[in-house]
Amino acid sequence: MRGAVLHAPGDVRVEQRDDPTIVAPTDAVIRLAASCVCGSDLWPFRGIEAMNGPSPMGHEYAGVVEAVGGEVTSVKPGQFVVGSFVASDNTCEICRAGYQSSCVRREPMGALGAQAELLRVPLADGTLVATPDVPDDDLVPSLLAASDVLGTGWFGAVAAQAGPGKTVVVVGDGAVGLLGVLAARQLGAERIIAMSRHEQRQKLALEYGATDVVAERGDDGVARVKELTGGLGAHSVIEAVGTQESMTQAIRSTRPGGHLGYVGVAHDVALNGQELFFSHVHLHGGPAPVRQYLPHLLDLIWDRKIEPGKVFDLELPLDQAADAYRAMDERTAIKVLLRG
Amino acid sequence: MRGAVLHAPGDVRVEQRDDPTIVAPTDAVIRLAASCVCGSDLWPFRGIEAMNGPSPMGHEYAGVVEAVGGEVTSVKPGQFVVGSFVASDNTCEICRAGYQSSCVRREPMGALGAQAELLRVPLADGTLVATPDVPDDDLVPSLLAASDVLGTGWFGAVAAQAGPGKTVVVVGDGAVGLLGVLAARQLGAERIIAMSRHEQRQKLALEYGATDVVAERGDDGVARVKELTGGLGAHSVIEAVGTQESMTQAIRSTRPGGHLGYVGVAHDVALNGQELFFSHVHLHGGPAPVRQYLPHLLDLIWDRKIEPGKVFDLELPLDQAADAYRAMDERTAIKVLLRG
Repeated sequence: MRGAVLHAPGDVRVEQRDDPTIVAPTDAVIRLAASCVCGSDLWPFRGIEAMNGPSPMGHEYAGVVEAVGGEVTSVKPGQFVVGSFVASDNTCEICRAGYQSSCVRREPMGALGAQAELLRVPLADGTLVATPDVPDDDLVPSLLAASDVLGTGWFGAVAAQAGPGKTVVVVGDGAVGLLGVLAARQLGAERIIAMSRHEQRQKLALEYGATDVVAERGDDGVARVKELTGGLGAHSVIEAVGTQESMTQAIRSTRPGGHLGYVGVAHDVALNGQELFFSHVHLHGGPAPVRQYLPHLLDLIWDRKIEPGKVFDLELPLDQAADAYRAMDERTAIKVLLRG
Repeated sequence: MRGAVLHAPGDVRVEQRDDPTIVAPTDAVIRLAASCVCGSDLWPFRGIEAMNGPSPMGHEYAGVVEAVGGEVTSVKPGQFVVGSFVASDNTCEICRAGYQSSCVRREPMGALGAQAELLRVPLADGTLVATPDVPDDDLVPSLLAASDVLGTGWFGAVAAQAGPGKTVVVVGDGAVGLLGVLAARQLGAERIIAMSRHEQRQKLALEYGATDVVAERGDDGVARVKELTGGLGAHSVIEAVGTQESMTQAIRSTRPGGHLGYVGVAHDVALNGQELFFSHVHLHGGPAPVRQYLPHLLDLIWDRKIEPGKVFDLELPLDQAADAYRAMDERTAIKVLLRG
């Protein structure tokens, strides 16, 4: 099969890889309906995250089951399935508490390379959720988005306790931030302030339910949020970038006693303990336990109540994965869908 | 009146200070039944926190109202009252959300100097809570403890979501940590692991409801907690020290999805964003909103259901405040009560 492999920072190639097979009796192999590039793929692409030799890329996936191991009982060949970017048994104590991405038997899907034609999924019973039927083609982008960016934005909104009566700020206008806006709207937030200076992203944020757009960043952005919230800051802040600047902005935008959900992968971030202490903020985040939300999110998509797939504003053939990385790196595309 | 003044690190003197008077119509002046030294007083005493000239010391207080300003309606002269270490109006949006220590009109009591005979309390209506009657003398230490250390331990336990079915770890065996044990027990925690290597403090922790004592610290302490919790870590961790080492130990002792309540004042602490991200911990803390808990805590004390005053293991005359600081600095006393 063909699959994307990162050889060095900036050097993504689509090349021939071995077809995945059932290794453990709890595995499934799926044929991907589409694949895509994640903002977090840009960290190694930019050389910010260390690499250990050539790496298959991609951890978001949706497609049709081709084969299952002998112990798999919940999905079968022919079914269309979506899974999280972390495989989990969904039965351990941590999974049952809703933190499947910290499952005691977790396996990160990134190492397996989902920017490809086929993918092995470990712990298939715990990881995969089937849709009622094979979906119409136009639903595929939204179902694929559920695998990571939608579930991640959703977790950010849940961790920020977005809900009725709340003012929510979203820091970051990538796919996760935009879907954080969508999630906050679905969760019933009263007011949603999207921080963005890109016209196209502002437009999608408004379409997804943002009530206000703030273009300022850093301390100016914080000052603008304070102005909009009676000087107090927001009840709920979703952080979807993962830099020192964005975390600082997010903390300072949250009112005392408010909730900050951070889902941008924190790179080289050091939080000032004293500032955090006196901020009185609730801080929660990490790798989103997408599996917890998948059944609900797939229902919303299947019933066409939400359309997270709109974050894909560019579609390319899998063979042009390198162009997809470049478009996202240069921010000319929000998120790129790769087909066949 | 006489009051303690810190002139330089290590140099506390009890000297003649002006009697406080009603400055604003919302003020009260109270005659202190007793006063005490707080762990956080040791930061400037040790020279770790910068000073700006001689500073009156002390922020914990309980006593009888002597005078009130013209706008004060909820307390009157002759009543016995307790207040938080932060004065608050108890009516602003932040107060109503339960974060009185971040009240938009807050005034830190430390600047007013409660290690003295008399104390001015700003925002008296919002800040002070009266007991049903003037208490028996033996209740005074417990009532005084409610002003900070009990309320702070309580907030730590609430922020850590201590409760039925939960295993709680308490990092720190000072007065706040020990009262965090008491709070966790009152909140119904199933198992309470006190981290302490001091025999006397271990004893009080067990008396307050600890089920286990762990003497190891740092990564060894974390390993021991993991052993006691099936390899997962605790559901709830109360951090009551405020150093890099204690925060790191607390984060690593919490299971994914668990709650860490930190109430030690964070000095020179920098939290590693990436470690925190992957820890999946809920982090919440800061200056305890003691005012929120005072009515309930005073009831528990009045009805003799809890005895937080046991943390005072040394009593000295106010004039010997310097000895009190030394005893706490050298950890020969848990907490020192000062009378008259």
